[in-house]
Amino acid sequence: MVLEPQAQSIPRMIAVELQQGTVSLAARPVPSRAEGHALIRMRHAGICSTDLQLQRGYYNFSGTPGHEFVGEVVACGDEKWLGRLVAGEINLACNDCDWCRRGLRRHCPNRTVLGIVKHPGAFAEFLTLPECNLHALPDGVPAEMCIFIEPLAAACEILDQVAIPAGATVGVLGDGKLGLLVAQVLRLSGLQVHLFGRHVDKMRLLEPLGIGVERANGALPRMAYDYVVDATGSASGLEAAIAMTRPRGTLILKSTVHGAVTIDTAAVIVHEITLVGSRCGRFEAALQFLLAGRLILAPLIHDRFPLRQAPAAFARAAEKGVLKVLLENE
Amino acid sequence: MVLEPQAQSIPRMIAVELQQGTVSLAARPVPSRAEGHALIRMRHAGICSTDLQLQRGYYNFSGTPGHEFVGEVVACGDEKWLGRLVAGEINLACNDCDWCRRGLRRHCPNRTVLGIVKHPGAFAEFLTLPECNLHALPDGVPAEMCIFIEPLAAACEILDQVAIPAGATVGVLGDGKLGLLVAQVLRLSGLQVHLFGRHVDKMRLLEPLGIGVERANGALPRMAYDYVVDATGSASGLEAAIAMTRPRGTLILKSTVHGAVTIDTAAVIVHEITLVGSRCGRFEAALQFLLAGRLILAPLIHDRFPLRQAPAAFARAAEKGVLKVLLENE
Repeated sequence: MVLEPQAQSIPRMIAVELQQGTVSLAARPVPSRAEGHALIRMRHAGICSTDLQLQRGYYNFSGTPGHEFVGEVVACGDEKWLGRLVAGEINLACNDCDWCRRGLRRHCPNRTVLGIVKHPGAFAEFLTLPECNLHALPDGVPAEMCIFIEPLAAACEILDQVAIPAGATVGVLGDGKLGLLVAQVLRLSGLQVHLFGRHVDKMRLLEPLGIGVERANGALPRMAYDYVVDATGSASGLEAAIAMTRPRGTLILKSTVHGAVTIDTAAVIVHEITLVGSRCGRFEAALQFLLAGRLILAPLIHDRFPLRQAPAAFARAAEKGVLKVLLENE
Repeated sequence: MVLEPQAQSIPRMIAVELQQGTVSLAARPVPSRAEGHALIRMRHAGICSTDLQLQRGYYNFSGTPGHEFVGEVVACGDEKWLGRLVAGEINLACNDCDWCRRGLRRHCPNRTVLGIVKHPGAFAEFLTLPECNLHALPDGVPAEMCIFIEPLAAACEILDQVAIPAGATVGVLGDGKLGLLVAQVLRLSGLQVHLFGRHVDKMRLLEPLGIGVERANGALPRMAYDYVVDATGSASGLEAAIAMTRPRGTLILKSTVHGAVTIDTAAVIVHEITLVGSRCGRFEAALQFLLAGRLILAPLIHDRFPLRQAPAAFARAAEKGVLKVLLENE
């Protein structure tokens, strides 16, 4: 049910379009707001590795991507949201199935996903989301930093899925955007973290938190950690992560999705390794980390582009070694 | 330290030899018994899928295979074992490392493995094992049936690794020897079991236990079970098992090892599936199942050969649809 009837001249907006690998800009109608949904004016959005994968054809995606954002609510049903700056959970659940009733809305089989599955994303001047997906930004945290809430929630998901004993040492493989957030979330949760990656300069940003930095060129330690996180997003990274895991250990697959990958099941079976697929997480947990104020986030933002320069922003984000690139709509 | 000094004419025995895919018989010295080890006269031994894989070159194996056996202790240090019928745990641990001290002798990094890694196996007239690896056969259970203790322990390992809620339904994929044992152990532990395989005649053997039998030709159910066991030993089986697992579900890799396999990590990550590699288990748990007397084992023995006909026995065991083949030394 559409609450705002369209005027005769439908208001239009700028939206990013992904089509067969090409990033372009399009004039699109401002989306109509279904019942229970809010219309949000995007302020900042982050380009995620998943967006780059969508560009490469993952999910046969075409449309407007973008799922890391903060924005201002400009129309809504529950007026408490009006004018507020919000972040939003990306899974739009049906709220009516067994999964939703069990509180696992992120796994609702009927879900759409902002900017990924059948719901236009945040790389546009406006987007819609159900009001129940919204979270007000925490006081005292710069709005721009709140684009990290979604990937931080994904990092926090590890702690919801795996009971890692306090003080244990975790090997984190991958110094991309997600790896750097995972390392921080685990370290600030009282774990020892050894971060393995190819870019010592990026990893050193995290040394003030007491994160051990290990250059991952050549031989990685074998059977060295009871807990390993693969945040490489690469097939060879997953293979290396399996080899790093001790017998009876747990390897968390915290990657942007990489599809069909060949793994050595012999090692997994003989060493009785547990592999845990890990995706989106609770925003509440991420907000707690942001509020605590100890995360090192600002240096992870490598560039900013106005929304209208989205093609250049995508190209920049795809450069080797580049971390978060923002799209701005201020 | 060798306790029985070799006589000038060293006693010899018949042993099976695997060499580059060929099964042959050889005359070998009766093995000398190291301190703390027992010398065991093999009575019955079972050919396992792993043995067939060793024949195909897995582990670059050459030597005497065999790890499922029962036999009589003919020489030992602790005389309580002398003359007893025993089964034996297959991992020979160092008893001196962190793993051993933590009670995880099956994962001792210094271990050898009976008939698999650097310790001559049970397909011979005699074998040796540490006395601490031995288990006396339970009273009232035919000795022949006790060759199932080792694979039953591997089936029981699932329950030690994964806390499956009472009454839950488990999908078991694979109707080979291990799949049929896994299905029984889970069913007799109070779980509902749906067994998927290609041989309805074999699966129907288990119907008296209330195990649901599903023919696995064509479409398998997708995202249907919170708990799935892959006992197919095949790459395509593992792929199907992943597809059968519900979001947030657990898939136990209970296979003879199949090495490098391509899996869809996208499904594992997006559905946050947990994969659990599972290998050897505790003999104590297996003995409890044997003692309880409810397992359907006799129909799983499809053939018996004298040790001297081992080449024919291996050929028989490799035939499609053939379950357990025994080697006898009576």
